[in-house]
Amino acid sequence: MRKIFDALIVGGGINGSSIAFQLAKRGCKVAVLDKGKIAGKASGAAAGILGAQTELTEDGPLFQLACKSRSMYQSLIPELEDLTQVHIGYQNKGVYKVAANKEEELVLKRLIESQQKADEQAEWFTIDDLIKREPFVSNKLRGAMYIPNDGQVQAYELSLAFAKASITLGAEIYEYTHVSDFILKEKKVYGVRTGLGELLADSVIVASGAWSREILERTGLSLPIIPVKGECFSVKIEKPLVQGTIFSHGCYIVPKQSGRLVVGATVKINSFDEKVTFGGISLLIEKAQNLVPEIAHAEWEGAWTGIRPQSADGLPFLGQHPACEGLYIAAGHFRNGILLAPATGELMADILEGKTEQPNPFELSRLECLVHSSKGVLL
Amino acid sequence: MRKIFDALIVGGGINGSSIAFQLAKRGCKVAVLDKGKIAGKASGAAAGILGAQTELTEDGPLFQLACKSRSMYQSLIPELEDLTQVHIGYQNKGVYKVAANKEEELVLKRLIESQQKADEQAEWFTIDDLIKREPFVSNKLRGAMYIPNDGQVQAYELSLAFAKASITLGAEIYEYTHVSDFILKEKKVYGVRTGLGELLADSVIVASGAWSREILERTGLSLPIIPVKGECFSVKIEKPLVQGTIFSHGCYIVPKQSGRLVVGATVKINSFDEKVTFGGISLLIEKAQNLVPEIAHAEWEGAWTGIRPQSADGLPFLGQHPACEGLYIAAGHFRNGILLAPATGELMADILEGKTEQPNPFELSRLECLVHSSKGVLL
Amino acid sequence: MRKIFDALIVGGGINGSSIAFQLAKRGCKVAVLDKGKIAGKASGAAAGILGAQTELTEDGPLFQLACKSRSMYQSLIPELEDLTQVHIGYQNKGVYKVAANKEEELVLKRLIESQQKADEQAEWFTIDDLIKREPFVSNKLRGAMYIPNDGQVQAYELSLAFAKASITLGAEIYEYTHVSDFILKEKKVYGVRTGLGELLADSVIVASGAWSREILERTGLSLPIIPVKGECFSVKIEKPLVQGTIFSHGCYIVPKQSGRLVVGATVKINSFDEKVTFGGISLLIEKAQNLVPEIAHAEWEGAWTGIRPQSADGLPFLGQHPACEGLYIAAGHFRNGILLAPATGELMADILEGKTEQPNPFELSRLECLVHSSKGVLL
Amino acid sequence: MRKIFDALIVGGGINGSSIAFQLAKRGCKVAVLDKGKIAGKASGAAAGILGAQTELTEDGPLFQLACKSRSMYQSLIPELEDLTQVHIGYQNKGVYKVAANKEEELVLKRLIESQQKADEQAEWFTIDDLIKREPFVSNKLRGAMYIPNDGQVQAYELSLAFAKASITLGAEIYEYTHVSDFILKEKKVYGVRTGLGELLADSVIVASGAWSREILERTGLSLPIIPVKGECFSVKIEKPLVQGTIFSHGCYIVPKQSGRLVVGATVKINSFDEKVTFGGISLLIEKAQNLVPEIAHAEWEGAWTGIRPQSADGLPFLGQHPACEGLYIAAGHFRNGILLAPATGELMADILEGKTEQPNPFELSRLECLVHSSKGVLL
Repeated sequence: MRKIFDALIVGGGINGSSIAFQLAKRGCKVAVLDKGKIAGKASGAAAGILGAQTELTEDGPLFQLACKSRSMYQSLIPELEDLTQVHIGYQNKGVYKVAANKEEELVLKRLIESQQKADEQAEWFTIDDLIKREPFVSNKLRGAMYIPNDGQVQAYELSLAFAKASITLGAEIYEYTHVSDFILKEKKVYGVRTGLGELLADSVIVASGAWSREILERTGLSLPIIPVKGECFSVKIEKPLVQGTIFSHGCYIVPKQSGRLVVGATVKINSFDEKVTFGGISLLIEKAQNLVPEIAHAEWEGAWTGIRPQSADGLPFLGQHPACEGLYIAAGHFRNGILLAPATGELMADILEGKTEQPNPFELSRLECLVHSSKGVLL
Repeated sequence: MRKIFDALIVGGGINGSSIAFQLAKRGCKVAVLDKGKIAGKASGAAAGILGAQTELTEDGPLFQLACKSRSMYQSLIPELEDLTQVHIGYQNKGVYKVAANKEEELVLKRLIESQQKADEQAEWFTIDDLIKREPFVSNKLRGAMYIPNDGQVQAYELSLAFAKASITLGAEIYEYTHVSDFILKEKKVYGVRTGLGELLADSVIVASGAWSREILERTGLSLPIIPVKGECFSVKIEKPLVQGTIFSHGCYIVPKQSGRLVVGATVKINSFDEKVTFGGISLLIEKAQNLVPEIAHAEWEGAWTGIRPQSADGLPFLGQHPACEGLYIAAGHFRNGILLAPATGELMADILEGKTEQPNPFELSRLECLVHSSKGVLL
Repeated sequence: MRKIFDALIVGGGINGSSIAFQLAKRGCKVAVLDKGKIAGKASGAAAGILGAQTELTEDGPLFQLACKSRSMYQSLIPELEDLTQVHIGYQNKGVYKVAANKEEELVLKRLIESQQKADEQAEWFTIDDLIKREPFVSNKLRGAMYIPNDGQVQAYELSLAFAKASITLGAEIYEYTHVSDFILKEKKVYGVRTGLGELLADSVIVASGAWSREILERTGLSLPIIPVKGECFSVKIEKPLVQGTIFSHGCYIVPKQSGRLVVGATVKINSFDEKVTFGGISLLIEKAQNLVPEIAHAEWEGAWTGIRPQSADGLPFLGQHPACEGLYIAAGHFRNGILLAPATGELMADILEGKTEQPNPFELSRLECLVHSSKGVLL
Repeated sequence: MRKIFDALIVGGGINGSSIAFQLAKRGCKVAVLDKGKIAGKASGAAAGILGAQTELTEDGPLFQLACKSRSMYQSLIPELEDLTQVHIGYQNKGVYKVAANKEEELVLKRLIESQQKADEQAEWFTIDDLIKREPFVSNKLRGAMYIPNDGQVQAYELSLAFAKASITLGAEIYEYTHVSDFILKEKKVYGVRTGLGELLADSVIVASGAWSREILERTGLSLPIIPVKGECFSVKIEKPLVQGTIFSHGCYIVPKQSGRLVVGATVKINSFDEKVTFGGISLLIEKAQNLVPEIAHAEWEGAWTGIRPQSADGLPFLGQHPACEGLYIAAGHFRNGILLAPATGELMADILEGKTEQPNPFELSRLECLVHSSKGVLL
C-alpha cells in the first residue's frame, strides 16, 4: 500500500479519533493508524468522568481547556450519535467529591471558593445534605463538594463514535497497523513506515498516549511522558445506588447505564503492565466499600486496566515537534483524555491549519529538557 | 421467606417483565420469579425485530395484536428509558423482506396487497430500487417487500428495561428462584412453591416461554407448546452495510448500534438444547452471504441460542387457566415475544382486573385438546 | 423419544457421572439426564480438594467413606485418563490446615492425635517448619496440621472424565433435559418425565445435588437438604507460591496447574443465587492475603459460584427412597462431592445390584422427619 | 531498571522461550522480553501439529531439522512437565494427509516414497483402510498418506511450559515490555531499549516472529519475513470423532483433550490484522465439513487468529546478524514454529556458545538481498 494523505494520525485512542474527526470535517484526507484496535487501550478502559472541576484543582490553561472541552460535548454528543449508530451514554448528574475528614473538608471548601471565582459552579454539601441526595453514601464521611457540570460518558463508546464519525466523513482507519518509524528528510516529515509499507502525508500527528514517547525517540525526542497503570472493575446492581459520580482520594464510583457501576482506579507509576492484580482489586474494593457500603451486595462483573500517559509537568503536549516540520504531537492527557478530546481535536486541527493566534500553553517548546541528550532523565 | 403479593409472575423474560410493569403501574404488589437471570433465555437471545408485518402473513387477531403492540412501543420506549438507565436502541428503518425468485416475488406482492388492505404500509421494491436503498444487498435477488414500520430493538436491553422499570414502580424480582409447584386448594391458586419456600398471591401468571408446559403439568394441563431452538451469531463492521433489516426465508440480518449485525436464526423443533452447533453456524453463514455478500469481510463476534415457545395453533395463550381460579397463562409467543410484549402486558393486566369486554381470541378455551388425558399427543 | 434403560440418573454432576460409570462398567444400560450441561453447577465450580482428613474432623462412617473414596482415586484417575482424552490434573502434595492462634493450634493438635489413632497420617508443623516447606505462608500464623494424603484434582475435568468414560462404556448423556416428574405406579418407579417426553427404566437415581429436594417433592418426600452458596476466584502466578493446599477457617488456596491458584469459598446458607457478589470477593481477598501475603502480586483471573447441597445431619443420603421401589437417592455431599464421588458410585451400584451386606449408615431411613408432613421444617 | 544479562531474548513466543530454556540450562543469565504476554500471539494460536513430514514435503536441511526437533520432544515433554505444573497434552496418534482426487493421491504416493527413502515412516491408506481407522472421515476422499510419527501438542501450554521451565532455571520474563531499539556501538550490540529503560547484555536474540522485521529495521536490516494471517476455530464433541489429525489442502482437524477439535487455518498473506472474519470462518467450515461431515453436530466453541512469519525462501533465519556482533536472529518459522522450537533452542544456544562446527544452512548470509537498500522489495 502506498497512499498519500493530508494527515496521518498515529494512535486510534479518543484523541487520535477526535483529531481525525475535526480534520475530516474541515475537508482533510486523513487516516488513523493503530497498532491494535480502535480505543483498545486507555480510552476504552476509562471510567469516562468528564471531571474538569473534579480532576483539575488549579485555575490555569489546563483548567480553561478542560472547561471548554467539557462544554463542547453538549453539541458534540448529539452530533456524533447522529452520524453513527453508537450510543454514548452521556449522563449529566454531577460529581460528589467527598471529604473523609476535617482536613479534606477544608481543602474542598477552598477549592469551591476558587472555582466559583473562576465562574464555575460548585457547592459544599454537609453529610446530611449529601445523604439526602445520595442516600447510600457512607455517613462516616464529612460531606462533599458538589460539581453539577462534571458529567460522564461511556468512554469506549464515545471513542468509537469519534472513529466511526470520522469514517463517515471520509477518514480511513487502519487497525493492527504499527508505525515503526517516520519518513523524514532534512527535518521534514513525509509520512510513516509501518509493518506493511509506507504511507505518505503532509502532516503526521502522534496521538499514541503512553506509547508516544517510544515512537518519538525515532526523531531524537525523549518526550517526558511516563505510563501510569490504573486498574478498575465493575459491578451490577438491581436498583440505582448512586445518581452522581462519587469521587474520593484514590477511588471513584461511576453509575453507568443498565445498572452498572464502574469503580476505579489504582495508580502504578512507570508501568506498561496490563494485568489486573489481586492487590489492585483488594485496594479498590476496600475503598469503594468505605464510600458506599451497600455496594457489598452488588454483583461482581469484571476487572481491567488502562495505561495512562502522564507528562512531566502535568500538561498535555499539544503542538508541533520542536525539530521536525510537519510532525505534531497530541499526547500526555493522563487521566483527562476523555474530557479533553473535543478541545484537543479542535486545537490540533487549528494548529495544522495555522489558525491559532493566541499563544498555545501546551506547546512543546515549554520544556527545555526535551532534547535527546537528556534521555533517560525522567525514567 | 413467606410474603404475600397481589400477583406473582413465573418467568422473567420480556413478557413476564412487561406484565409486571403494567400491573405495578396499576398499583399491584407484584413479584417476578425467574429460575435464572432476568431475560436469560429467549428474550435475551432475540434479534429484536418488531416484525408485525414481516412475521405475520395473515390478517386476523394475532396480526391485529402485533400491529397494536408495535405501535405501543412509540410511547413505551421513551417511558422505559426515562424510568431506567437502560438504552434500548430502538431503530425504525424498516424491514426488507426479500424475494429470491419469481415465486417468492408473487407471494410477497400478494402479501403487500393484503396488508395494504389492512391499512398497513408496505410496498414492492424491484432489485434496482432495493439496491439504490441498500447497495450491499445481493443483486441476484428479485426485489423486496419494504415494510417501513417494522422497527427493531436491542432485545436484552428492552427486557431489562421492563424489569428495572417494574422495580422502580415497586415490583420485586427474584432471580435464581425456581417455582416447582403451585399452592392449589379446591381449584384455586394461593401462591407458588420454590426451592426456598412458599410465596403467596391472589393471582399467579405463568410466563415461562418454552418452559411453561412443564410447570403447568402440575395442574394437569398439558399446554401444547413445543420448544424451538434457534441459533444466531453477530459480526462487527466498520461502515454500515445495511440500514434496514434484511429478511429472507431462513435468515435475517439486523443492523444494531456500534456497527454490529445480528444474523439469525436456525430452527430446530422440539429441542431445549442451548448449544450452538457447527451445522447451525454453517447454514446461517451460507444464507447470510447470499443476502449480503460483503458480510464476508465483517469481523466475527460470537454465537448463541434461544429456545422459542411455539404453540400448536400458532397463537399465544393469553388468558386464564381452564381449571384453576387465579392462575393465568401468557406463553407461546414463538418468534414474536419481543414484538408482543407491550400488548401482552396490557391484555394480561386487563384480564386480571376483569376489564376485558370483547372476546379474547387468545383464551385457552380455544383448544379442546388441552386436558391432561391428551398428554404427549403433541410431542 | 421413548427409550428403555436399566437405570436413569437424574443429574450430571460428578456423583451422577460416577454412578453412571460404575453401572456402565457392570453392564447396565444407563443414561444421565441433566437440565443443563455436564458438571455445569457445583461439580464444575469446586476447588477440587480431596480433603478427607481436612474437611471431616470426626471419625465415623463419613470419615471412613471419605478415606476409602480418596484411596480409590489412586487407580481411578489413571483409568479415567486412559479411557478419555481428559487430563484430570491430580496433585498429591497434601494440605496444610493452618492455625491462626493458640486455640486453633490446640484443636488441630487434638485432631492430629485422633486421626493418627484412626491410622491416618497427619502431623503438626510449627510456623518455622511450615515456612521451611511453604515459604510464602504468613509468618503470623501459629503453624499447621499437615495432611500428606489429602490431594486435589481439577474438579470440572474430573467430572467430565467420569461422564466421558461412561459414554465410552455405553452410557448415554442427555444434556439440557429437565426431569419434571417420575413415572410412578403403586409406589414403584417406571421412569421419568422430561420436557420432551418420557424415558423408562427399572431404576432411577436422583443425584441432583442441591436441586434434589425439589424433584423429590414429587414423591411426597421433603429431603432435608439446603443449598449453600459458595463463591471462589482464581489468580495466576509466574512462579509457584505454594506447593500444597493452604487451608484455614473460611478460606483455602489451592495450587492448580499452569500457575493458577484457586481461592475459596464463602458460605451463604439457603441460597440458590449464582451471582458473585462484591462482598464475597471482598471477604475472600482479605482472608487470602492474610494466609499468603505475596498473593497480592498475582494476576486476577475471575470469579464464580457453586451451590452446595448440605444435608440436615451432615451425612449424604445414599440409598433407596423410603416409599418408592426402584427410586434411589445420592445427594447431600455438601463440600465433599468431589472427594466422595468414587465411593458414591460404587456404593450406589452395589445397592442397585442388591450387593450390600453390612448396614449402610447413609440410608434415608435414618431420619424420622422425612415424611411429607414435616415439609418446610428445615427451611 | 538497569540490569545486566548474558543474553536477552526479544519475543516470548515458543521459540524465544525455548532458547531461554536451553541457555538457562547451560548456566546463562537470560531474560525474555515480550511486548504483551507470553505466547500471546502465533504460539498461543497454533493448532500444535508436530508436522515434520506433513508440512515439509522435500528432503533437505529444514526437513532434517524438523525431524530432529520432533524427536527431541520425546524427552523434552516429560522434562518440561516435570519442571512446571503445566500439562502439555502431547498426543502421538499420527496425521492422515488426505487426497481428494487422483492427482492428490499421486502426489502423496510420491511423497511417501521419498520420505521412506529418507528413513521416515509413511504409508498409503486407501479410503477403505482409512475409514476402518477413522470411520468419520468422508468416504468421498481417495485415501490418505498416514504419518504415524507426526504427533501434536497443546501449543499454548507447551509455550508456557518452556517459559515456566526457564524461570525455574533462573531466567527472567518481562511481559508488557516493548523493545524499541538496540543499544549498538560500532556494530556491536550492548543491550536493548525498552519503554521503561535499558537492559544490557552480551548477546541479544530476536525471536519476534512476524514482528522481527520491524525491530531489525533499526539495524538497517530488512529481514524478508512477511506476516501471514491464519484463522482457526474449535468445537466440542461428546465422543471422539477422529483419533489422528486429518490434514488436507487448506484445512486440518486436530483432536485435543476433553473432546475439543481445533480446525485451521486460513491463509492471508501480508496481514497483521488479528480479527477473525466471517469469510474466514465460512471457508474453514465448508472445508471441515467436507473432511468429516459428522462435525456438523459438534458444539461451536470459538474462533481466533495467529500471525505467522513467512520467510522469503521458506527457511527460518537462525543465526547471527550479518552486521552486528552479539545480535542473533531466530525467526521465520512460518507454520512450523511449534515443531521447530526444540531444535531452534538448541541450535541458537550452540551458536551463542560458538559450538556449531558444521555449516548452518539457516544462516542469514544465504540471502544477498538483505541489505538495507533493498527495503520494500518484498512487501
